[in-house]
Amino acid sequence: MYLLYFHCINIQNYSNALLPYIPFFYVIWSDDLLSASEIDVVKTAIGEDDSLSNLDKEQLCSWLNKNHPPKNEEIKNWQQLITNSGAKLVESETYPLEAFSRKVSDFYFESHRVNENLRTIELNLGIQPNHYNHLFHVEVIHQAYSNQYSGSAIDAILNAPHLTIINQFREFLKNLIFKWDIHRDKELARKLVLKQVQLLASDGWGALAYPNAYGGKQDIESYASIFEHLMFVDGSLAIKFGVQFGLFGGSIQNLGSTYHHDNYLKDTGETKLLGCFAMTETGHGSNVRGIKTTATYIHETRSLVIHTPGKSDNKEYIGNALDSKMASVFTQLIVKGKNKGVHAVLVPLRNEKHETFKGITIEDNGYKLGLNGVDNGKIWFNQVKVPVENLLDKYGQIDRNGNYQSEIENPNKRFFTMLGTLVGGRICVAKGALAGAKIALTISIKHALKRRQFNDSIKVQEDLLMDYPTHQLRLIPKVASSYVYHAVLQRAMHDYANSTEDKRKIETQVAGLKSIITWFATDTIQECREACGGKGYLLENRIADLKNDTDIFTTFEGDNTVLLQLAAKGVLSDFKSELNSGGFVSVLKLIGGRFADKLATINPAYSNKVDKAHLYNPKFHLHALDFRFRRLTDSAAMRIRNYIKKGIPSYQAFLKTQTHLLELGRGYSEVLAMKWYYEFVSSQEEGPYKSLLYKIGALHGLSIIRKDATWYLEQGYLGSTKSKAIRQRVERLSTELRPHINSLVNGYGIPEHLVSAPISN
Amino acid sequence: MYLLYFHCINIQNYSNALLPYIPFFYVIWSDDLLSASEIDVVKTAIGEDDSLSNLDKEQLCSWLNKNHPPKNEEIKNWQQLITNSGAKLVESETYPLEAFSRKVSDFYFESHRVNENLRTIELNLGIQPNHYNHLFHVEVIHQAYSNQYSGSAIDAILNAPHLTIINQFREFLKNLIFKWDIHRDKELARKLVLKQVQLLASDGWGALAYPNAYGGKQDIESYASIFEHLMFVDGSLAIKFGVQFGLFGGSIQNLGSTYHHDNYLKDTGETKLLGCFAMTETGHGSNVRGIKTTATYIHETRSLVIHTPGKSDNKEYIGNALDSKMASVFTQLIVKGKNKGVHAVLVPLRNEKHETFKGITIEDNGYKLGLNGVDNGKIWFNQVKVPVENLLDKYGQIDRNGNYQSEIENPNKRFFTMLGTLVGGRICVAKGALAGAKIALTISIKHALKRRQFNDSIKVQEDLLMDYPTHQLRLIPKVASSYVYHAVLQRAMHDYANSTEDKRKIETQVAGLKSIITWFATDTIQECREACGGKGYLLENRIADLKNDTDIFTTFEGDNTVLLQLAAKGVLSDFKSELNSGGFVSVLKLIGGRFADKLATINPAYSNKVDKAHLYNPKFHLHALDFRFRRLTDSAAMRIRNYIKKGIPSYQAFLKTQTHLLELGRGYSEVLAMKWYYEFVSSQEEGPYKSLLYKIGALHGLSIIRKDATWYLEQGYLGSTKSKAIRQRVERLSTELRPHINSLVNGYGIPEHLVSAPISN
Repeated sequence: MYLLYFHCINIQNYSNALLPYIPFFYVIWSDDLLSASEIDVVKTAIGEDDSLSNLDKEQLCSWLNKNHPPKNEEIKNWQQLITNSGAKLVESETYPLEAFSRKVSDFYFESHRVNENLRTIELNLGIQPNHYNHLFHVEVIHQAYSNQYSGSAIDAILNAPHLTIINQFREFLKNLIFKWDIHRDKELARKLVLKQVQLLASDGWGALAYPNAYGGKQDIESYASIFEHLMFVDGSLAIKFGVQFGLFGGSIQNLGSTYHHDNYLKDTGETKLLGCFAMTETGHGSNVRGIKTTATYIHETRSLVIHTPGKSDNKEYIGNALDSKMASVFTQLIVKGKNKGVHAVLVPLRNEKHETFKGITIEDNGYKLGLNGVDNGKIWFNQVKVPVENLLDKYGQIDRNGNYQSEIENPNKRFFTMLGTLVGGRICVAKGALAGAKIALTISIKHALKRRQFNDSIKVQEDLLMDYPTHQLRLIPKVASSYVYHAVLQRAMHDYANSTEDKRKIETQVAGLKSIITWFATDTIQECREACGGKGYLLENRIADLKNDTDIFTTFEGDNTVLLQLAAKGVLSDFKSELNSGGFVSVLKLIGGRFADKLATINPAYSNKVDKAHLYNPKFHLHALDFRFRRLTDSAAMRIRNYIKKGIPSYQAFLKTQTHLLELGRGYSEVLAMKWYYEFVSSQEEGPYKSLLYKIGALHGLSIIRKDATWYLEQGYLGSTKSKAIRQRVERLSTELRPHINSLVNGYGIPEHLVSAPISN
Repeated sequence: MYLLYFHCINIQNYSNALLPYIPFFYVIWSDDLLSASEIDVVKTAIGEDDSLSNLDKEQLCSWLNKNHPPKNEEIKNWQQLITNSGAKLVESETYPLEAFSRKVSDFYFESHRVNENLRTIELNLGIQPNHYNHLFHVEVIHQAYSNQYSGSAIDAILNAPHLTIINQFREFLKNLIFKWDIHRDKELARKLVLKQVQLLASDGWGALAYPNAYGGKQDIESYASIFEHLMFVDGSLAIKFGVQFGLFGGSIQNLGSTYHHDNYLKDTGETKLLGCFAMTETGHGSNVRGIKTTATYIHETRSLVIHTPGKSDNKEYIGNALDSKMASVFTQLIVKGKNKGVHAVLVPLRNEKHETFKGITIEDNGYKLGLNGVDNGKIWFNQVKVPVENLLDKYGQIDRNGNYQSEIENPNKRFFTMLGTLVGGRICVAKGALAGAKIALTISIKHALKRRQFNDSIKVQEDLLMDYPTHQLRLIPKVASSYVYHAVLQRAMHDYANSTEDKRKIETQVAGLKSIITWFATDTIQECREACGGKGYLLENRIADLKNDTDIFTTFEGDNTVLLQLAAKGVLSDFKSELNSGGFVSVLKLIGGRFADKLATINPAYSNKVDKAHLYNPKFHLHALDFRFRRLTDSAAMRIRNYIKKGIPSYQAFLKTQTHLLELGRGYSEVLAMKWYYEFVSSQEEGPYKSLLYKIGALHGLSIIRKDATWYLEQGYLGSTKSKAIRQRVERLSTELRPHINSLVNGYGIPEHLVSAPISN
């Protein structure tokens, strides 16, 4: 018997000390992805292994020559040698390949010696059991995932410094009223959501961002995390909550004066006063400045008359419209016959009996794709009179004599200062979309860690879905991106909370980030639905609702296509143009000549550098994304300038470069996100979690670069070898993160009782 | 006054004859997209214009030198000259730019002469009013769209030769029962859908594909078009219809013998017998061969015992499960203790009172993301006895002595022959998905032809959404692809209907086409939702339901990811491997050495050829897509062979190339689609419609090539100049098709009363 095993292997060629290296070399050569820095790792480990003779070392190093790889026959011999050992592969070992290697070599020459050098190789090359468990014809003791990293430790890193309040809130969410269920009837759903909002208010969560005097803690950063958690419960709840406390309450807080705060803020936080935020009009979705509703000042009665002039000038899609007693209405303020621009006015809608006041018409928007627990409606005003005190007058007042005055003389600047107060809402929308992606990823990954699919080999158990490379590639890079965007939005909210009056830069940043992150969420949830097959299509498994609820996030609080153009214009004017402004001319003045410095030509050695150390280096990701951003800026400015020089009207010049501007807006947002993420990671303590976060960053960075590889290749920034290497590294990193994927989704910190999908449990 | 106009223009430089060329040259130089073949067009027209002096001709030709373009000052002069003329631009003219040019020159020197040479330029360059209507500071008489092409003429081209029966069916659909409405409650929706199906049956539409003896016309091609039209009505209706007549009835027709036809087919077609198709199991979504339900033959009683062995071996997601009296159940047939492989058995589920028979348990699947008018359910069988005659025994019988026999000895071949009969269903799924995309495109485009967005200039009316380049780019290439895929599916159904017993090739083709077309539909409907903004989110506007209903099409009748791998395996084995087969070894035998012939290296002159004549040439599109297909085949085969040579188990070799195989499946499908489309176009009569179809093909082809430009650049097939030129041509072709976009969506032939979305009317 013993002889039979060995009939075709020459193990006499391998020394006792060299044998444990054989499984490593077999794994390494099954792939062709050894880069110079990885060869260095292996060579160094071999050099430091005192048990190896010089001859062994020479032999091993000769197998590391990419130009002269080991012969196929040699590799086949290794395979046979491993198979014949009958060693078991136990995935739950701390160093599974090193432990397996020991068992293989012990079969031939007992020694039971732990080889630290092999552990170094295993760690540094990131070799994972799922790389090689099918390579050997041996028994495998499977482990669905590794517990090397703890989900709650990751959660603590991601959610510091608000973890205490977040954990308090997670406890609060255990109240059974927040248990997820299927709701098909909008009236019943709305009733429930209203009750939930009231309960949240009664416990003080609604007022969190308000000043202490009005029941709050002036903590908008924690408020945003609370909002995120409400998405885990239900999309409609999050949106209704956001409308009541963030939009309606926020408009009082940010656009009103002490009078309004004293009269309304506390009641709003407690839901004694329900309100809505009436900005969008049917005829003017994205063009706030062009709204038609008027507020005409009548000096005799010291009142404002609110009026909807035309049939399609009604307020549209107003959340909370059916429950509200009051609306914060955006109007063109007319004083002494002159239009003073857009101002918000508080308009009572209904009396105590919930009957609408005279002149006010409210209609239900009816059923929507999702968010049917939110009562969206249309509102028309027919000469509705309110006292002048109802003008939210922080940025513009009407004095005793009926004269308009404002500290901000420039009406453009005034308009954009007011709109700047909406930035917090946009960050919340992005956070909400991302929360939807997180829970969908959690459900589909937990499912893929349980569900087995067919497998050709009869002797082996069917594979877990998560072990298919295609499945890893569709889900794991998205988990990586979700980490990046999470850190980025925490940073954005922090910057916003601490920003000065002039919010134009953060507004540009958020316009871009909201776009890329909400689109990311739409893509991700779609991918999760498909990754769960037919099970993902059942409402009981949550993904369907997440898809439908978050779908509108790419449109509301600013349509993504419009926002990306705004971001681009912000960039082109160095954040000096007023966002949302139609005035291009001021922008054009600024771009003349500013981008004269040519970008350095890319060195061919750089554009074909494929070493792992380089490809995983944050500097490379940032350099590539920044190169793209700067070149897109440069070329957009040049194109526009050339059009203008030919006498082409500026509006047409912008139309002609519109698709270019969208790319610029996207490029700007991607480099910003990468930069903020790496700043977040570099501020962490040294240790395994920091390394993990860097690896996540690398996967995100390479995925994003890969997405635009066409452009990078066209520009000569990437050579074809490097472009292919990036694709391979994206697949490889997905595989490396595969064992930790369970910890990574646990790291989101979604309370277990909220991940209620049957397929994930 | 007159003098003032001319203060800065030297019109004395331009002759009377040359003047009408000025607006053309202004438009031409506002873009930089003049290729050699376009310059030729202009030069030829100039050469043939006898009104021009030789000096004029020289002057004009000097303005066609791309290396020495006219100076900016010259171009500005042209602009001024045009503006000063005060000419009106009337978009509804047959040749709007030529007519405009005439008005401009008539202002300076009256002649009123029609210039045929300019008309030639306008036509051949495809210059459209929306290219240039913003370029001039002149009054524009807008036209939302052109009527150059007739929608019904296009419809006739697309739907020949089934137009008569289709038009009959369109008339039938005017019955008010088919009027679209919002349905939230699944019970009510199911009741309505059942009624609709019964009505269709009563008028003979259900039996269309059955033999005449059983009430049909044996016309599966028209049946598929009917199915498509039902999607225009409602997704649930189409699916329920397909389950009853296509899957249940189809299994009787294709897997049963005369006995079954005589007993069940007529009743099925008339919905006297409602049935379902029970193949999928909870534990075995994509692995039909691994299903666990058994049908054990008991010779004593000449019966089959149907049994569900384990908890998760139940039939899952069975459409029509709650209404059915009978199921066509896929089982492992056990005869004399031996497993004879998968066979279908007719199993009665319920009695006349609709009570389930003993041993049968049926559960509702509950609410789904969409298709809630379809009663999907789970079915368990507990030792359910049926007579042996219920075995659908076309491909395998149990004789009087209780022996199993089959004409197809090889059990693999038998299995795949049976599955081959499902191909028709897969084509219908793809047609249904495409129908969803068509109606979503129709709604969003009709909306974009009405809806105006903000515009910087006060004097000009706000632009139509459809006039934004970003909007054109997001919708028009998708319309082009919808045309291509329509023609392709018509062809697939024709080939399938006329195929012989061995359906392996068409099965491979359809596996791939179903995948790319259902994914195309998902992307397209998502794009349409976003393109309609918040309006697209309202149920009343239909897109929401279309999104939800078609979302599962990427999963059912074969998960796309699995299907693409099947297609790849079909390719690698030259269609000799049995599809769905896990057995890779037979495939591997075939690929050894077959792809030895190296693909020709690409000539650098070719990889940077950017001339319009080349880029619009079908030969280029086919060459590029075929190159990609062949290279992916070649490299996949090589990689797998190399792994095997190293001793890596074949299952692992396939796992390691899984993402590669997906690309191969996609590449195979794309070139097939392009090929079939151009075959369809070339068979058309010469004339403007044929040219239009070629232009549509070019837009689709270039879009598809653009999507994989990273790969083409990596391979050196595209140079960076050509890659950029392709992007520009995609934008340009979208703009050229913009005026005809209304005719193109009308060309789908969707009955007007079914396009019931308020935003599109």
